[in-house]
Amino acid sequence: MSIKKKYSTVRGLFERHAAGESPAGFNVSLAGWVRTVRQSKEVGFLELNDGSCQKNIQVVFGQEILDCPPANGSAVEVRGTVAVSENPNAKAPLEVNAESVTILGSADADYPISKKRHGFEYLRTVAHLRGRTNTFSAVFRLRSVLTFAIHEYLQKNGFVCVAAPCITSNDGEGAGEVVRATTLDLRNVPKNPDGSVDFTKELLGGGRFLTVTGQLNVEPFCAVFRDVYTFGPCFRAENSNTARHAVEFWQVEPEMAFADLEDVMDCIEGLTKHMIMSALKYGADELAFFDAQIEPGLVRKLENTVNEPYARVTYADALDILKKSGEKFIMPVRWGGFQTEWEKYLAEKAFGRPVFVTDYPREEKAFYMRQNDDGATVSAADLMFPGIGEVVGASAREERLDRLLARMGETGLRPEDYWWYLDLRRYGTFPHGGFGLGVERMMMFVTGMGNIRDVIPYPRTPGHAEF
Amino acid sequence: MSIKKKYSTVRGLFERHAAGESPAGFNVSLAGWVRTVRQSKEVGFLELNDGSCQKNIQVVFGQEILDCPPANGSAVEVRGTVAVSENPNAKAPLEVNAESVTILGSADADYPISKKRHGFEYLRTVAHLRGRTNTFSAVFRLRSVLTFAIHEYLQKNGFVCVAAPCITSNDGEGAGEVVRATTLDLRNVPKNPDGSVDFTKELLGGGRFLTVTGQLNVEPFCAVFRDVYTFGPCFRAENSNTARHAVEFWQVEPEMAFADLEDVMDCIEGLTKHMIMSALKYGADELAFFDAQIEPGLVRKLENTVNEPYARVTYADALDILKKSGEKFIMPVRWGGFQTEWEKYLAEKAFGRPVFVTDYPREEKAFYMRQNDDGATVSAADLMFPGIGEVVGASAREERLDRLLARMGETGLRPEDYWWYLDLRRYGTFPHGGFGLGVERMMMFVTGMGNIRDVIPYPRTPGHAEF
Repeated sequence: MSIKKKYSTVRGLFERHAAGESPAGFNVSLAGWVRTVRQSKEVGFLELNDGSCQKNIQVVFGQEILDCPPANGSAVEVRGTVAVSENPNAKAPLEVNAESVTILGSADADYPISKKRHGFEYLRTVAHLRGRTNTFSAVFRLRSVLTFAIHEYLQKNGFVCVAAPCITSNDGEGAGEVVRATTLDLRNVPKNPDGSVDFTKELLGGGRFLTVTGQLNVEPFCAVFRDVYTFGPCFRAENSNTARHAVEFWQVEPEMAFADLEDVMDCIEGLTKHMIMSALKYGADELAFFDAQIEPGLVRKLENTVNEPYARVTYADALDILKKSGEKFIMPVRWGGFQTEWEKYLAEKAFGRPVFVTDYPREEKAFYMRQNDDGATVSAADLMFPGIGEVVGASAREERLDRLLARMGETGLRPEDYWWYLDLRRYGTFPHGGFGLGVERMMMFVTGMGNIRDVIPYPRTPGHAEF
Repeated sequence: MSIKKKYSTVRGLFERHAAGESPAGFNVSLAGWVRTVRQSKEVGFLELNDGSCQKNIQVVFGQEILDCPPANGSAVEVRGTVAVSENPNAKAPLEVNAESVTILGSADADYPISKKRHGFEYLRTVAHLRGRTNTFSAVFRLRSVLTFAIHEYLQKNGFVCVAAPCITSNDGEGAGEVVRATTLDLRNVPKNPDGSVDFTKELLGGGRFLTVTGQLNVEPFCAVFRDVYTFGPCFRAENSNTARHAVEFWQVEPEMAFADLEDVMDCIEGLTKHMIMSALKYGADELAFFDAQIEPGLVRKLENTVNEPYARVTYADALDILKKSGEKFIMPVRWGGFQTEWEKYLAEKAFGRPVFVTDYPREEKAFYMRQNDDGATVSAADLMFPGIGEVVGASAREERLDRLLARMGETGLRPEDYWWYLDLRRYGTFPHGGFGLGVERMMMFVTGMGNIRDVIPYPRTPGHAEF
C-alpha cells in the first residue's frame, strides 16, 4: 500500500552518481513538482524538483508521451530511465528519459510563481508558495541545517535542553514592549471597581506575556545540570519596521555554571563556527546559489570565519579604535550606547572578522549582568559579525545577592517580582554566565539575505501575521 | 582566567572509571551543590552533585577541614584525591578524600528542599528549585534526551525542520479554546462604533492567537522539501484541570509528501522507538531511578516496546474487540467517539503494547483528514500507549480540493479563512500525511510520571503561570 516506497528520490540518484556508482540505465519512478517546461517540435524538457535536494533533475519526454505538457507548479509522476546528461553545461549531471509523465495534481493558470524572477517583497505575500523558488528553498533548508547544528553542538558538549515557557508572568529584561497572552474577551474585559483589569477571570491567572527571553527561566537549571540551554520562539512587540527586527524570532540561550565571560565567549565561538561548518558541509548547493545570486564571495567569507579566531576587544579599546579611525560616524564616538554603525565598522573594517566587544558601561546593560570591580562596567560581551552587527549578547550573571539587589533598586525593578530568581542567590549561588543567539541574524550572515522577513517561514512584523 | 577549566566533572570521573582507566589517586577540583551531609565525630560525608550526571559523588572530609559543614543546597568547591569507595553498598564506585572544602555560596536556613521526601504537589510551588531533587533532575535530563532524539531521527531521515509561527491568525483545527496574543491595552480596548474590537490598532493587525498546531503551516513546505517537521510550543486554553492537559505543551509535527497512512505509521513507529532507545542508551541512570521509585518494571516495558512491532487495528475491529472483551466500560461501546478508557484497555489488555487504531468515523475527526472510499471513515490513525492512551494523532490529508471544500462546508468553516491552505490543492496537489506527537505524553510513558505538570519545567495550567 505504501506510496512512499514506489518512488526514488533525486537526491538519492545524485548521491549515487557522486559516489561513482552511476545509476545510468536504471528504471526509476520519481514524483515531484514542475519548475519549468520547454518544448520543441519533437521533444520536451521539464525541470523537476522533488523536494529531496536543491537541484532539479531534467526530464526529457517525446511528443508521443505528452500532448499537453504540465503547467509550472504541477505535481507529476515520472517513470523512465536515468541517463548521464549529454549537455556538458547542464546544471545537474543526470537526466531522465521519460516513458510516462502522469499529472498527479495540475496547477491552475493563475499559479503565483512564474518563471520570471519575482521580487522578495511580492513573494512575502505568497509565503505559502515562495519556498518553491530556488532562493527560498535554499534559505529554509539552511535554516534547518543551522537549527540542528545548534542542538548537535550543545548536546555533544553536555548541555541539557530545558524548555523555557512562552507564556510568562515576567517581562524579562524589562526592556521593550511585550505581547500579552490572554483568554479574556476583548469586547468585554472584566474590570475591578477601580477600573483596573480583573485578572482573576484570566484562565492562566494574573497578567501574562509572551516571553522576550528564556534566560531567567533557564538559570535555575544551571544548578541542576551545570550547562543548559533553551531554544525556542521569543517575542518583542517593538513597532519598528526595520530589516533586522521581527516580533517573533527564534533564540538559543545557553547558560553555564562555574563559568566566566571567557568561558562563555569560547562557547559562542565554538557554537557559531559549528553552525557555519554545518552549512558548508550540508548546504553546499544552497551556499553556491547564494554566492552566485545574492552575495558574491559568501563561501570564502564563511570559510574565513571558521578558520580564524574571532577578535576580542574591550569596549574602552573599541572606542579608541573608532576615534582613531578617521571614519565619519553619524553619532560621534563617546562613552555610552554602542551604535550599529560602530559595530559594523569594527567587524568589517577594523578587524575584518567577527569581533567580541566586552566590558560595557553598566548603564547600557541589563540588571542581571555581573558588575566589574571598576564600578563602571559589567562583564558582558556582544559578538558583532561583518555586515550584520550584533548577533550574540552575552554576560557573566551577577551571582552576589547584595549587588544584584542594589542594581535592581537603581533600575526600578521590584525584588518581589523576581523572588524566585533571587532565590538562586540565596541557596548555593555560583558563578555563571550565558548568552542569547538569534537564529535569524545568523541566517542573514550565512545566506547574505538582507531582510529578516526573508529568513522566517511566516514572518510576524508590525501589521503582519497572515498565514 | 577561565573558571570552567579549573574543574573536573563527576561524569568525567565515572566514565573514566567505567572505561577501566581508574582515576584513583588523581588530584581533582570539583564544584557542585551539597545534596546531603552526615557527620560523625571525626569524619564527615557530603553527597555532592555537580550537575554533570544523575549520580552524586561522596566527599569524605576530616574534622580539621570543616568545623561547620555546609548546609544542604550550598555550592562548594572540593579539592582532594579520588579513591575507590570502600563501601561495597555505595551507590557510586568513587569517592573523594577532601583536602579542602570551600563554600562558594551558602544556603539560607529556609532552603525549601529538605532531606525528606517532598510531595510532587509541594515541589511544583518551587519549580525553580525542584530540579535539584533526584526525581526532577532525572525527569528533565530525559526530556532533553527525547528532544534531541526527535531532531536526530528526523534529520537523519531527510526531514527539514520548518519553524511554524506561534502567533497565528487561524485557530488551527477549529477545536477548543485559544489563547489570544494582543498588544492592545486591556484597560481600554479600542472599539469600533458597533462595539466590536478595533483590530486596526493591533500591532500585528487583526485578531491573533497562539497556535494550537503547526500542521497547516508546515503542509506547504512538503511541496518544497518533501518531508518536513515543525517542533515547538503549542497552546490550548481548555479550562480542564486533568493530569494529562497543559495550556502550553511541546509538539513535533512531521508531514510527508507522496505518503499514505501506512508510511506515516511507519514513521511514527520509527520515531517513537528511536526516542525510547535514546532514553535507554543515554538515560540509563535516570530510568533505573524511575524503575525503582516510580514505576516498577519500567525498563522492561521500554525494552519490550522497542523490540516488538506495534499493533495496527481498524476502528471497526477495535470496537469488536471491546464488545467481545466482557470488560465493563463506563461508556457503552458503540460507533462514535473513542473513549480514553477504551484506548487504555486496547493498549494495556487487548494488545499489551502500543497500538494504532485506524480509519475513524469522519465526524469524529478534523476537516483536513482524507476521506476513505466508504464515505463513512477517514484515513486517520491514533497511537495508544499502555498506561497513557493517545500519544500521537495522525492522518493522510485530504488533497482533493472538491472533497476538502465539501467537508469544510459541512463543518462550518469558511474557505476564505483558509485561502492559502486551499491553494496547495490548486497548485500541484499531492498525496501527503503527517502526525502530531506531544513530548509530554511521551515523557509520561518513558518516566512513569503520572502528571503532565511534573514533566514540564514550568507548567502552564488553569490558574498557573508563575515563574
